[in-house]
Formats: sequence, C-alpha cells, structure tokens
Amino acid sequence: MTAQQAAAFLRTRDRFLILTHQFPDGDTLGSAFALCLALQALGKQARVGTVGPLPARYAFLAAPVPAQPDFEPETVCAVDVADRALLGEENARLYGERVALNIDHHGTARAFAAQTLCRPVAAACMLVREVIGQLGVPLTPAIADCLYTGLATDTGCFRYSNTTAEVFLLAAELTTAGARTEEINRLMFETKPRGMIQLEQAALQSLHYALHGRVALMAVTRAMLQESGLDDSQVEGLAAVPRQIEGVWVGLTFREKPDGGFKISIRTGPEADAAAIGAALGGGGHLRAAGCSLELPLEQAQQRLLDVVAAVVPEITL
Amino acid sequence: MTAQQAAAFLRTRDRFLILTHQFPDGDTLGSAFALCLALQALGKQARVGTVGPLPARYAFLAAPVPAQPDFEPETVCAVDVADRALLGEENARLYGERVALNIDHHGTARAFAAQTLCRPVAAACMLVREVIGQLGVPLTPAIADCLYTGLATDTGCFRYSNTTAEVFLLAAELTTAGARTEEINRLMFETKPRGMIQLEQAALQSLHYALHGRVALMAVTRAMLQESGLDDSQVEGLAAVPRQIEGVWVGLTFREKPDGGFKISIRTGPEADAAAIGAALGGGGHLRAAGCSLELPLEQAQQRLLDVVAAVVPEITL
Repeated sequence: MTAQQAAAFLRTRDRFLILTHQFPDGDTLGSAFALCLALQALGKQARVGTVGPLPARYAFLAAPVPAQPDFEPETVCAVDVADRALLGEENARLYGERVALNIDHHGTARAFAAQTLCRPVAAACMLVREVIGQLGVPLTPAIADCLYTGLATDTGCFRYSNTTAEVFLLAAELTTAGARTEEINRLMFETKPRGMIQLEQAALQSLHYALHGRVALMAVTRAMLQESGLDDSQVEGLAAVPRQIEGVWVGLTFREKPDGGFKISIRTGPEADAAAIGAALGGGGHLRAAGCSLELPLEQAQQRLLDVVAAVVPEITL
Repeated sequence: MTAQQAAAFLRTRDRFLILTHQFPDGDTLGSAFALCLALQALGKQARVGTVGPLPARYAFLAAPVPAQPDFEPETVCAVDVADRALLGEENARLYGERVALNIDHHGTARAFAAQTLCRPVAAACMLVREVIGQLGVPLTPAIADCLYTGLATDTGCFRYSNTTAEVFLLAAELTTAGARTEEINRLMFETKPRGMIQLEQAALQSLHYALHGRVALMAVTRAMLQESGLDDSQVEGLAAVPRQIEGVWVGLTFREKPDGGFKISIRTGPEADAAAIGAALGGGGHLRAAGCSLELPLEQAQQRLLDVVAAVVPEITL
C-alpha cells in the first residue's frame, strides 16, 4: 500500500500499539516513537511496545511521549519488522496474528500483517515520515529527533551505500525542523563507555584473516564482555571493525550468546552480498549488513561461515 | 567578497595556480581540484599546487583533471588556507605575497590574500560550490566527487556539529550530480590498513585519564608508527578516539614528530572550545577540532596541555 493509504487507514482507527523488532535499534525505535507522537498529535491513544525494557541510550526517544493510560490495543502496528518472528517470542504470540499495518523497508520482508507499506529505502523512518506527512501532522522537534535517529543509525551516519539523495534531503528537512543532530550523533556514534576500549582491544586480539585476506574474523566471548562490564546491546558497533580493514571483502564478528552458540554479524564491501551469506545460514538482512546464529563452538562456527562465504562468493577463493 | 564577485574576478583572469594548505586534507584538495576542473571547463589553464606529493588516498581527485602544459602562473588562488604560513614553507616563499584570491571557511582566518571569500561554513568546498555556480559551470560527476570529498571529510561524514541543513542539501545535490559517495566514503572513512589495527592497539595502551576523567590522553610514538608500517598522513583518524569515551570533554592525541616534539590533536565535546585550547599554545583550528605543536618530551607536553585545558576550561577542574 502507499503512504497515503496507510495514513487513511490510521485516521479511521484508535488505541494503537506500535511494535518494534526485538533487540531494537535506532530505526525501529525512532520509527515507532515518531509514529506514536504523530498519532497522539491527532488526539489518538498510542503507545510503543518494545520487547523488554528500552535500552538506556534510546531513552531520549521516549522522553517526549506523553504517557497514555493503559489501554487494550485496538490497532496493532509494526515498524521495521521484516518477519513475524522478529517481533520477539512474547509479542509474536500475543499480537503476531493481528498486526493491522506493518511499515517496513527490508527487501526480504515477509508479509505477515493485514496490510504492509514496504519500499526498500534506507530506513523505515523514511516511510514513517511520508505517513506522518499524509496524516497532516507537522514535524515537531521531538518527531524530528525520532526520525533523525532512525535515518542516521540505519545509514551509519550517512556513510553506507544506502545513503541516497532522498536520505540527505530528509536529513536537511529534519535538521531544519529542529532535530538535535549533534546530541543524537554523540549518543549514537561518538560515545563509548570506557569498557568499550578494553573490549575492543580484547576482541582485536582475536582478529585473523582467511581466504587470501579477503575475510576478517573477530570474536567477542562472554568472558571479554564480562570483563568489560558491557552488555550485548552495547557491542553492536564492533561488528563494523573487521570489514574496514584494507582488502577485506567480508567482515565477520562472532558474538558468544549467553546460552552458548554464536550470533554472527556479516558486513561486506561491494564485492559480496551479506544478505545472501546470512540467508544461506537461516539468517537475513541487507546487502551490506546481515546476520545469522549458529549453535556451534567458535572454531566450527567460523569454519561454517568460511565454507558458506566461499560458496556464495566463489570469486573470493580465486 | 561574495561568491558572485569571486566568480566575476576569476572570469577575467587565466593561468591559475590553486594552492592548498600543507598536510592537505579532503577539503583543501577537494576544493582545489573542483575549482581547477571548473576553470578548465571555461577553457582556462589551471593547475593545483600541493605541498609535496599528493597523498595516495586522494589520487582519485586528481585523476579526472586533464594535465595542462607547464605554465607560469598569472593568478594565484588559495583554498581552505587560514594563514599564509599554512601554505607551507616553499609555497609561502614563492607565492605568499601574490595570492589574488583566497577561498576559506575558518573563523580564525587571517587575510593574507588581495581578496578573500570567507564565511564560517562547515567546509571550504561549500564556498567553492557557490563560486562554480556563479561561474555557470555545471556540476559534472568529477566536480561532484571533489566537492563531496571536502564536504564529507570536514563534517566527519555528516557527524560533527557543523553539519547544517545547508550541508545536507549540498550532499543531496552532489549525490544527484553523480558523486561516487559510497566509494569515497569507503576510501575516506572505512578503509584501514592492517597496520592501523596494530597501531590502534598500541596507542590505546597509552590511553589514560586526567581531570576527573574529563580529559583522555593518548600517544602515538615514532616506534609505534614504524612498527605499524604507516606514515604520519595515515593516522589522522586516531585523534577522534580519546574524545569518544564516555564522560570525556577533551580528547588529546600526542603524535611524535619525526624530528622530536609532538603534534597535538585536540578534540572536544560541547563542554569545551578546542580552538581556544589550541590558540593558547600557538596553534588553532575549529570549535571542536584544533591542534598545536610542542617541542617538549611527552610527559612535559602532556602536563602543559593539562595546565592549559584547566585554565581555558576552568569548570573541568570542579
């Protein structure tokens, strides 16, 4: 459906619950809180339902949202959710079958909602901005903050290949509307806990290369995490490191899960398709950034990834 | 003077030598090559004069510039040069007294040219883009590459506080004009030589804190550099690291110079003025990023900086 149709639908409904994907990031949260603020501006009841508590670094997104009296949701929406399973176990069970509208930008999205607004733009919040425009709600500084957070985080602060002219134009619009870009950039991209420095050093010691130096592999173990005092949600950024090394086509970061096994972040340059590598192992994602999960010890997980990379990107072995 | 006046002046002249500042960065080089291409598009002779050879990572800027037969310059211009001394010793001696037009964006710029186009925008290339527009030269993909390089590097890829709506609008225009943003971002921001990983680890081991954890100090010695196989021009990016640590107002990176003494990079958050700290030690720069040079051993240089920081930012000691 179009943004216009989505807005027409939203206008007829009330008592919104807006769901994000699990392990929420800036785009799913920015999209959800922006939509929530816009619906509240229309006099409707709306609240955001995240899986688990809101990560502290995103607390500023929720701060301007007036609390709504607890209400039984009438209309369930989802934002930036490519698959029902990504709602998280509890939300998938409670609401998975009754999502009325999903606003998403993943090329790999599976239609699980009654209606879906989906275009492969850089960030879901670009589509949410269109819907808000169609709703006739002006961009307040608080809404601009939310949308900017989604736009900046999903484009790596305008660095990734998905940064189109449309992205820059929206960034200009949001800056003019009063988004606190400097503060948000600091929070999202420029603030590392002291423990992160320690963790980076430890993780870098595990760095090694394979397939003619075109693959770089790095591991983050539970022991490293514990020693750094960080939790899982704080270490996403590390995944960018291996791919940034000169000559590396595929950067792989293996993060040990609390219950064993590894969550693998796959980052690629223009030479390789991260989504295809992730998909081959039951995961998914975007062209340059994807992920998957393996219930294997580290060495076996790394070998499994290398086998898949060699199969999906045969030129890498030449 | 205005961009219109600068263009009117350039139209009347020929045989341009366009000078950059020493230790050239993306903005001075992008500005210079963009202006050079625009003047050549008008049928004029123009060449860029850098101090020393063009750093390899910027070679792509020079590639589309048709070689001009060697000519004795009639009109000397400078771009992104805040002070005559920054032309470098040789160019300052040869041309320092005969710069006809300087296009610069430093608030601290000293007028040394016959005419100066100066506004405190994020990047000199924003002013060069205005001049090119006034010259009536269309934005080719090659010119867009040059301007984008300056814009992206001087804003930390749209991350720094100088990233205004005007910056984003120009980025959108350059993207539409065919700037190879993905490739340039990879070259400028996402490509680390293997030796850089090693150097980062070594430098991070020198990291320590002062003034209630609000200052972080890091050192890069000649020994570290030699072991990494990198040269001075490749390690600029490291200077961002100390300031990114949570709670740090002022990040200081001490890079040992080949002939002894240290070049200090000063990076600040909104709590402190980097230019003021640099200026107090005979250096200079911008509000959030500045530099200076001290002919002292490391410990004394670090103590000197801490004394100056405490004096310039007295709240830091509370």
